[in-house]
Amino acid sequence: LAGIDFWYDLASSYSYAAAMRIESVAASAGVKVRWRPFLLGPIFKALGWNDSPFNLQAAKGRYAWRDLERICGGLDIPFRRPTPFPQRSVTAARLALVGHDEGWGVEFSKRAYLAEFGDGRDIGERVVLLDVLSSLGLDSEAVFAKAETAENKQRLRAETAEAEALGIFGAPSFVTADGEVFWGNDRLEQALAWAAGRAERTPSTF
Amino acid sequence: LAGIDFWYDLASSYSYAAAMRIESVAASAGVKVRWRPFLLGPIFKALGWNDSPFNLQAAKGRYAWRDLERICGGLDIPFRRPTPFPQRSVTAARLALVGHDEGWGVEFSKRAYLAEFGDGRDIGERVVLLDVLSSLGLDSEAVFAKAETAENKQRLRAETAEAEALGIFGAPSFVTADGEVFWGNDRLEQALAWAAGRAERTPSTF
Repeated sequence: LAGIDFWYDLASSYSYAAAMRIESVAASAGVKVRWRPFLLGPIFKALGWNDSPFNLQAAKGRYAWRDLERICGGLDIPFRRPTPFPQRSVTAARLALVGHDEGWGVEFSKRAYLAEFGDGRDIGERVVLLDVLSSLGLDSEAVFAKAETAENKQRLRAETAEAEALGIFGAPSFVTADGEVFWGNDRLEQALAWAAGRAERTPSTF
Repeated sequence: LAGIDFWYDLASSYSYAAAMRIESVAASAGVKVRWRPFLLGPIFKALGWNDSPFNLQAAKGRYAWRDLERICGGLDIPFRRPTPFPQRSVTAARLALVGHDEGWGVEFSKRAYLAEFGDGRDIGERVVLLDVLSSLGLDSEAVFAKAETAENKQRLRAETAEAEALGIFGAPSFVTADGEVFWGNDRLEQALAWAAGRAERTPSTF
């Protein structure tokens, strides 16, 4: 089965839309998805940004929120602009890594996104993450202990370094087995078509 | 007939792809297109940028050229990364305004894009624009004289100011009669669906 890696930051607005639809569109395309949580913050910092481009550029930010509102309307998923934005997603990402090992990472990620962009809650707050974990029937405190080991923290740093090495500079990004990067929720279909061998695979000169 | 405005900068790489395909996809959608040349440079300057984001951010630039290469491959249109990039598009935009008045603006714009992104020529050079105009059977020097009147120069400034007032911060952008902005070649289909009344028109809270 062809596969793609779905790189997402739990603070990323367009990743929310992608996360809510990727399972069904990938299944239709016959492509297997590996969920790869990472942090955009360190990559933005390397560009000299200390905030989201949606905050740094007013016109782009206004556009992006309206655009996401339209997209969520089309997908029939809830949307509320969260406060604060972006949220501190480091703990949520560490939890997601544990969850992907244990088989509940996809559902955790979707519920975290829904809390943030559907209900307007702050996933930077421990209580919100505890609620999400509890809703999955997990022992929240035990999961937190696994998420906050030095090893798991280092693992998230390594994942983020891998994203950067792949050329990723935004989220969501989709990466095929042959290393093609597709950036943005709106590129999911092209990434799947490429992975499934249904797109013309134009050779790269870059 | 439903309509959209197609805002494009003749130096914009993704606008090239949009320009080469918009006539056929808009016709299929039953939507009329008004071509609106403008300049991104003044809008970028207001953001504190003195260059294209594709030059200012190395990872985004590498991605964008490869992405455009894939897109052009899929559309079966030629692609060469132009030098310099971005090119000075002010004169070409002034000519396009004259051309849209006189009925040859669409063909001029497409041929200018092909010279730039297909053949790797520099549309900032007068000789290249003269060649494009001549290829259309026009009296190049007479057209240049119309393009370079104070009135036409002012008109381009007013068009750019209108783009900025609409919230446009990148090209291509598509704007519907009810003021919805869609940014990027990859949003053309959504813009057309919205204009044609085939998209769910989620009300705006922004």
